[in-house]
Amino acid sequence: MKGTFVDRRKILAGLLVSAATLSVSGRSARAQSDPLPSWNDGQTKKSILDFVSAVTKEGASEFVPAPERIATFDNDGTLWCEQPMYVQLAFALDRVKVLAARHPDWKQKQPFKAVLDNDIATLAKGGEKGLVELVMATHAGMTTAEFEQIASDWIKTARHPKFNRPYTDLVYQPMLELLAYLRASGFKTFIVSGGGIEFMRPWSERVYGIPPEQVVGSSIKTQFKVGKDGPVLIRLPTIDLVDDGPGKPVGINSHIGRRPIAAFGNSDGDFQMLQWTTSARGRRFGLIVHHTDAEREYAYDRKSPFGKLDKGLDAASANGWTIVSMKDDWKRIFIFQ
Amino acid sequence: MKGTFVDRRKILAGLLVSAATLSVSGRSARAQSDPLPSWNDGQTKKSILDFVSAVTKEGASEFVPAPERIATFDNDGTLWCEQPMYVQLAFALDRVKVLAARHPDWKQKQPFKAVLDNDIATLAKGGEKGLVELVMATHAGMTTAEFEQIASDWIKTARHPKFNRPYTDLVYQPMLELLAYLRASGFKTFIVSGGGIEFMRPWSERVYGIPPEQVVGSSIKTQFKVGKDGPVLIRLPTIDLVDDGPGKPVGINSHIGRRPIAAFGNSDGDFQMLQWTTSARGRRFGLIVHHTDAEREYAYDRKSPFGKLDKGLDAASANGWTIVSMKDDWKRIFIFQ
Repeated sequence: MKGTFVDRRKILAGLLVSAATLSVSGRSARAQSDPLPSWNDGQTKKSILDFVSAVTKEGASEFVPAPERIATFDNDGTLWCEQPMYVQLAFALDRVKVLAARHPDWKQKQPFKAVLDNDIATLAKGGEKGLVELVMATHAGMTTAEFEQIASDWIKTARHPKFNRPYTDLVYQPMLELLAYLRASGFKTFIVSGGGIEFMRPWSERVYGIPPEQVVGSSIKTQFKVGKDGPVLIRLPTIDLVDDGPGKPVGINSHIGRRPIAAFGNSDGDFQMLQWTTSARGRRFGLIVHHTDAEREYAYDRKSPFGKLDKGLDAASANGWTIVSMKDDWKRIFIFQ
Repeated sequence: MKGTFVDRRKILAGLLVSAATLSVSGRSARAQSDPLPSWNDGQTKKSILDFVSAVTKEGASEFVPAPERIATFDNDGTLWCEQPMYVQLAFALDRVKVLAARHPDWKQKQPFKAVLDNDIATLAKGGEKGLVELVMATHAGMTTAEFEQIASDWIKTARHPKFNRPYTDLVYQPMLELLAYLRASGFKTFIVSGGGIEFMRPWSERVYGIPPEQVVGSSIKTQFKVGKDGPVLIRLPTIDLVDDGPGKPVGINSHIGRRPIAAFGNSDGDFQMLQWTTSARGRRFGLIVHHTDAEREYAYDRKSPFGKLDKGLDAASANGWTIVSMKDDWKRIFIFQ
């Protein structure tokens, strides 16, 4: 997968998403004497602890009142695994296979034929247009409640090809600890993802402790209708927001209405979110998760079709952003390891 | 003002809005032994107390877990005064007068000429198109930070023509008590307004105790740019969401991602929000503030150009919605009375 697949924004122009709610079940780590037990000691961990200490110490020069302690987290590659492909793309491909029975013409029609033939090379050649077609065919044309059910059912049963575990097991334990630590320090934590807002909301509270109203993501338009069973919201095949790259500050402004004081990402799709966050006055914090651990997870950066990190690596130092080396900075990556 | 001015959605297609934050300064009433001291005893008050009791009693059949206790409030006419015109329209008209020095052509060009001449009849004749022109000329073409400053400065100094007080004094004391009571009962309170999201956010936390991230409203598109002073968001003259009528469930789904269990409105622009909220399974609550008090505030409903309430009055009984008569149900309307 390469070429047209390389631009994350183009891929995400498609991966759009229906809302839901599961109750919190406390997967998040508890703050202990060491609030970040899965992080090795060193400069990376110290930069986090120093920042939190500086903005939470009442009366200190860099103190930030609790309501303004907004922290935004990318999802794919920052909170959970995005290889060998974005989880939502795996979902879209599975949906094409399920829906194919109702669409006999797909056997001959691209980009569906390529999906059904597992012909990723041809799929890649179709570029953005093909991907948007895939997403519209699989993510639109139903009510928000129906989509929520479909996405919830899929995430419960689908398994990661390498780890053979549910995707929601493939969340980074050090990042769960960080989310919990920030919340215990008076921060409000948000997801700001290029992925579909309604693909994440059904499980974000259970998995990350982040409620649906604190999830920002790419979206398609919806329309209110009163049908025979009462009012519904219909998912339309029209893009609303591509919440990636320069779209992330736009999504943050629309949904949160405040500029974050800390932002966490892993790819160049997070570049503008980090810029927007850390260029404001006052103490700010930006962090990039660098995937350097081929053994325990994956190693990739400048040339990866998913989660490409190039510009961010070059700009981190001048911007004062912390770079996490997963291999060196994290004692463990997944809770099951 | 009539005719084309009558459709609230058309008016609001224009009244769109930039984000900001002021710290909370606790205007909200505290829950006391009677959590709603400005409400007269009677069926209206009882319906609120009964609902809150039913959904908060752990183990009871209608219990709702705290994270799902979402309550949405319209703003204009529900939380603050919307007569003799929407506050944001007064803002837009004032902005035209301020900006006129830079636009000498406006003296001859509608709809600006009508504003400068205080010729409301001609302004009304221009209909939706004219209003959208006014809003785009006054609300777009600057950064979000600049708009925030302009809106904040205006709201600090502008005065209501009848009460000769800042508009933020014209919030309904019984509704402030209701907001505080719901929050004390584990609810998360949101504004869902046809008004501009970025017009409300600079003062919603200070006045209502509702932080910017819990304000949903109409919006125009923004664009991320890196200028000589760093990254900014530019407000574009393009409508993003008209958060009124059938747009309210759309805005709720986009920003909150859960269906509310209680909704509070006053006009037919809130009809679909109440439908969407109260038609779901489980105990639900819908309330309409009916403006019946010409002496202490204003009396209007079926024929009002602002805050028209017609369909809602007819449908309330069949839907089980509570109707508040401001005259009969509220001991006082404003804190200064």
